[in-house]
Amino acid sequence: MMTFPVLFVFCLIFSSSYAAVQDFCVANYTAPQSPAGYFCKNPANVTVDDFVYTGLEVAGNASKINKVRLNTAFVSQFPGLNGLGLSLARADLAVGGSIPLHTHHGATEIILVAEGTVVLGFIDSNNKVYLKTLNKGDILVIPPGLLHFQVNGGNSPALEFAFFSSADPGVQILENSLFLSNLPTELIAQTTFLDTAQIKKLKGFLGGTN
Amino acid sequence: MMTFPVLFVFCLIFSSSYAAVQDFCVANYTAPQSPAGYFCKNPANVTVDDFVYTGLEVAGNASKINKVRLNTAFVSQFPGLNGLGLSLARADLAVGGSIPLHTHHGATEIILVAEGTVVLGFIDSNNKVYLKTLNKGDILVIPPGLLHFQVNGGNSPALEFAFFSSADPGVQILENSLFLSNLPTELIAQTTFLDTAQIKKLKGFLGGTN
Amino acid sequence: MMTFPVLFVFCLIFSSSYAAVQDFCVANYTAPQSPAGYFCKNPANVTVDDFVYTGLEVAGNASKINKVRLNTAFVSQFPGLNGLGLSLARADLAVGGSIPLHTHHGATEIILVAEGTVVLGFIDSNNKVYLKTLNKGDILVIPPGLLHFQVNGGNSPALEFAFFSSADPGVQILENSLFLSNLPTELIAQTTFLDTAQIKKLKGFLGGTN
Amino acid sequence: MMTFPVLFVFCLIFSSSYAAVQDFCVANYTAPQSPAGYFCKNPANVTVDDFVYTGLEVAGNASKINKVRLNTAFVSQFPGLNGLGLSLARADLAVGGSIPLHTHHGATEIILVAEGTVVLGFIDSNNKVYLKTLNKGDILVIPPGLLHFQVNGGNSPALEFAFFSSADPGVQILENSLFLSNLPTELIAQTTFLDTAQIKKLKGFLGGTN
Amino acid sequence: MMTFPVLFVFCLIFSSSYAAVQDFCVANYTAPQSPAGYFCKNPANVTVDDFVYTGLEVAGNASKINKVRLNTAFVSQFPGLNGLGLSLARADLAVGGSIPLHTHHGATEIILVAEGTVVLGFIDSNNKVYLKTLNKGDILVIPPGLLHFQVNGGNSPALEFAFFSSADPGVQILENSLFLSNLPTELIAQTTFLDTAQIKKLKGFLGGTN
Amino acid sequence: MMTFPVLFVFCLIFSSSYAAVQDFCVANYTAPQSPAGYFCKNPANVTVDDFVYTGLEVAGNASKINKVRLNTAFVSQFPGLNGLGLSLARADLAVGGSIPLHTHHGATEIILVAEGTVVLGFIDSNNKVYLKTLNKGDILVIPPGLLHFQVNGGNSPALEFAFFSSADPGVQILENSLFLSNLPTELIAQTTFLDTAQIKKLKGFLGGTN
Repeated sequence: MMTFPVLFVFCLIFSSSYAAVQDFCVANYTAPQSPAGYFCKNPANVTVDDFVYTGLEVAGNASKINKVRLNTAFVSQFPGLNGLGLSLARADLAVGGSIPLHTHHGATEIILVAEGTVVLGFIDSNNKVYLKTLNKGDILVIPPGLLHFQVNGGNSPALEFAFFSSADPGVQILENSLFLSNLPTELIAQTTFLDTAQIKKLKGFLGGTN
Repeated sequence: MMTFPVLFVFCLIFSSSYAAVQDFCVANYTAPQSPAGYFCKNPANVTVDDFVYTGLEVAGNASKINKVRLNTAFVSQFPGLNGLGLSLARADLAVGGSIPLHTHHGATEIILVAEGTVVLGFIDSNNKVYLKTLNKGDILVIPPGLLHFQVNGGNSPALEFAFFSSADPGVQILENSLFLSNLPTELIAQTTFLDTAQIKKLKGFLGGTN
Repeated sequence: MMTFPVLFVFCLIFSSSYAAVQDFCVANYTAPQSPAGYFCKNPANVTVDDFVYTGLEVAGNASKINKVRLNTAFVSQFPGLNGLGLSLARADLAVGGSIPLHTHHGATEIILVAEGTVVLGFIDSNNKVYLKTLNKGDILVIPPGLLHFQVNGGNSPALEFAFFSSADPGVQILENSLFLSNLPTELIAQTTFLDTAQIKKLKGFLGGTN
Repeated sequence: MMTFPVLFVFCLIFSSSYAAVQDFCVANYTAPQSPAGYFCKNPANVTVDDFVYTGLEVAGNASKINKVRLNTAFVSQFPGLNGLGLSLARADLAVGGSIPLHTHHGATEIILVAEGTVVLGFIDSNNKVYLKTLNKGDILVIPPGLLHFQVNGGNSPALEFAFFSSADPGVQILENSLFLSNLPTELIAQTTFLDTAQIKKLKGFLGGTN
Repeated sequence: MMTFPVLFVFCLIFSSSYAAVQDFCVANYTAPQSPAGYFCKNPANVTVDDFVYTGLEVAGNASKINKVRLNTAFVSQFPGLNGLGLSLARADLAVGGSIPLHTHHGATEIILVAEGTVVLGFIDSNNKVYLKTLNKGDILVIPPGLLHFQVNGGNSPALEFAFFSSADPGVQILENSLFLSNLPTELIAQTTFLDTAQIKKLKGFLGGTN
Repeated sequence: MMTFPVLFVFCLIFSSSYAAVQDFCVANYTAPQSPAGYFCKNPANVTVDDFVYTGLEVAGNASKINKVRLNTAFVSQFPGLNGLGLSLARADLAVGGSIPLHTHHGATEIILVAEGTVVLGFIDSNNKVYLKTLNKGDILVIPPGLLHFQVNGGNSPALEFAFFSSADPGVQILENSLFLSNLPTELIAQTTFLDTAQIKKLKGFLGGTN
């Protein structure tokens, strides 16, 4: 009978003993989220491995376009971050590589350069540009929500780590929002002042429709 | 002797009686801000007019480019908002007018259409587009930090009010960040994939340098 | 067999794919709340209509007593507000109408007058009264938690919009708390100093018992 | 010359050495507040006595009307509370005494009965009454912002301590807001439905004008 | 058939009517927690008893070692505290009794001495010691997260109440963390500089392994 | 005349133009802090260098005792972090080196191992030990406020970066709190159960008095 597997999952979720003291709330990915994050895994079943993440040991998937490999350790990958307001990521920038203009919805970001040279820029609400070439060991903080980008500023690969003041900071990349989406060309033109030909060229390149 | 006016201001700022109970913290614009907002005006000198703002009775200054007039009631104009985490604005959109693609650094926004028809769009981190035509009395909430825009969707002027979950939400308009700033053309090209000619055309139009 | 419908609902709630990135948390009304709000609806099923509310296009239900019609767009009506800390309402005040003395539990409120004239008053912890006549386009901010009221101050209907720094600000109307409830008359008398006759008269009028 | 005393105060406020690590922010009462509380006293001058308050050893001033003596340890009296989001108070209720209906602007309150018997009531936004007789050692939590009151429910004096989730919770006592203030009688009548005679009687009793 | 009881519980949890307005969120202990606390009990089933706790009327269980009896009213015992950011506890210190060195993870604590004399000490990040002898009615605030302890400083039993800025402040007692746990002796030695013999003696005393 | 330099400083602090929009609040170290952090530097004088910190390029000062070199980038060194709730540090652990048992007052910490092998341990409120050997690229999150330590677990130097959810997380090292302070030996004995001889030995070693 079909109901057994469902009930089995159900019982795991609603087992009756919850530890009296909550020092942490490791994410339980089998249930929906609340505005404050995922449900807590039963503390009795939590082990140190819930607080460890090894996925940042290596670079992320390659992007042919930008010569950058991004790899994230957000709460959706790393359950120990749930409810703790922190996350991180790594970026491997090949020579000539860049992370295009983007924002994180409201999270502050700290960049730490681990290898090579990175040119980092951000722009504030008064259209003032903050531009800096960072070397190994340098750190830079980007105030929350501002548009920013990184480019490899040297002749060798660069590696940087980014730390965020949110367990799920989001990454909104401008070029993808505009040219990989189905936002109609005429609305893009009207709200960015870009030429229609430019928009269509980039949509063709990135895969956007309409 | 030159010191008297300064000392006079000084005495006003540091007068010795602060009310024991603080129901509010009206902004004192004569001193610097803290991360939580402006200093509090001495409660003894606060009147109801500190909590009232009449500047939104009229449209803001005209923008020849976008056919939109923006007028804000942020904490820097409206002292009663200090520390209270709310602000508002009005936008008057002429026929064919638009508010270009922009973000607010981390603030949620609610749009209320007061007159006419507004097409509102926002894009999430997964490049999914949310597009809606709003009529008089309709409201729409834009999740914090996401790129969005508005265009007049009708044949008559439109008026909308916007409410923010921050006393100072900032407005980062993409076209100004890129084309009204001194961000170098080659960095824009490398981090947006726009053609150099397009960038230079818009810089010429909006006034950006480099 | 009776278990099927329940399990069907259950499966909808606990479907297994949750988007990796959470830009928002639209309310799922079929499950209980957490202290931070409702569960999130599965992002894959979210559409722009979750962020739109049309219920404020019209006045709320009439109240014969106060000549006021209140209509709210709180998170329990408008799912897109969940977790975002904002909500709104409209009040239509007939000539001679009023919103009786009330509080919102801890939320700041901004009033925007859309039509007519409104006299707004609030009182602080030091028993200082802040009273203002507002005209079309005026805004006023009421610090969190303070007692306040509105009355139509003109000879024509008034319309105002209210914005709150909470998705669920609550509305505690003094007259209803005292005279529409089952709070014993002698306790009201002892803790308000009102005469017993006055209390009984208002209980009779509003429907309170005891 | 008159400027010396002022400058002396000034130098004390802006002395140049601030400890690198801030475990606390003891209130400096000689400068204005920010939205997050008072300035921090220079940590080098902080002693354990900044964290100690002895003023709650005794009952507060008597109130002839209510047979209650209130004494508070809010941040304006107890500098160590600054920025820490907690405060407390004691109430000594004589036989027949009461704390009239009141609210705190957004703070949660916990009541601990130390002596005697206290009847505590609060009312929620749905006009539901929560009423309880508390004995020595009992505790009760009042959700933030709701109207509540206490009365001595026994034949001996009662003592209770109250704890608040704010360093400055405010106390808005309904009878004082209405009848000890200069709120015009006709506005009170219109927004509470009380009879004019009742209002005038209580104004006469408590000292309100208009 | 085995599924009925489970489904019965299930239906109670997911009953379909949730009150529109949420003034509070009483803990539902039959479901897991979110980062913001327990699920809310259906408001329709909430009574005043959810907000009352009588368990602090008496001392907690005796500890032979420290001559102290601790009794807590945290959210896991007192459901009304859920989501409200406050909790409390009582400590009964026999003559010669003490509460060993401990921390609460990030919560501020206020101590109120109800009987006897208590010597309270805390230490800041700069290794500065704050030491005070408190008598009946005295209060002391301990900044969040700092190491602290209490000892009975008189010749009679002492009683104190503690108030916390968290519904679940945790109590991490140093001696238990080190000597009642399975933390290997050599790691303790390396990270505390204690002698191995001392560590083994205390492990033998308190029950730790490894 | 002596007053001029003071007034000059004063004028710099209270210069009259503050930018209308605040995307950030760079620390002004010449004035006291508020509970939310330092005053903001005038935005007109902010440059990109306020957001950059190069002090972590190198190891911190050597500690002969622990074979560890700690270097911090907290808000008191790095002004751009002010108000942003993030900070970081690096630790260079020689072979056999360790960071002794310590806490941060309420901040979450993420450890990223950049070189070598680190054994990290933390203990929760239930005296459960979480122990892990981390290699290059591994990350581990330590829930807020819990006691933890690190030791070099390999045969070569280790380098790690730590990230905190506070601009000023504090570091309370247990051995220093107890044995480098003036906490009286008898109180240490009474509240830790350590032998007096052990306490005196470590005080002699670390420099504590009393």
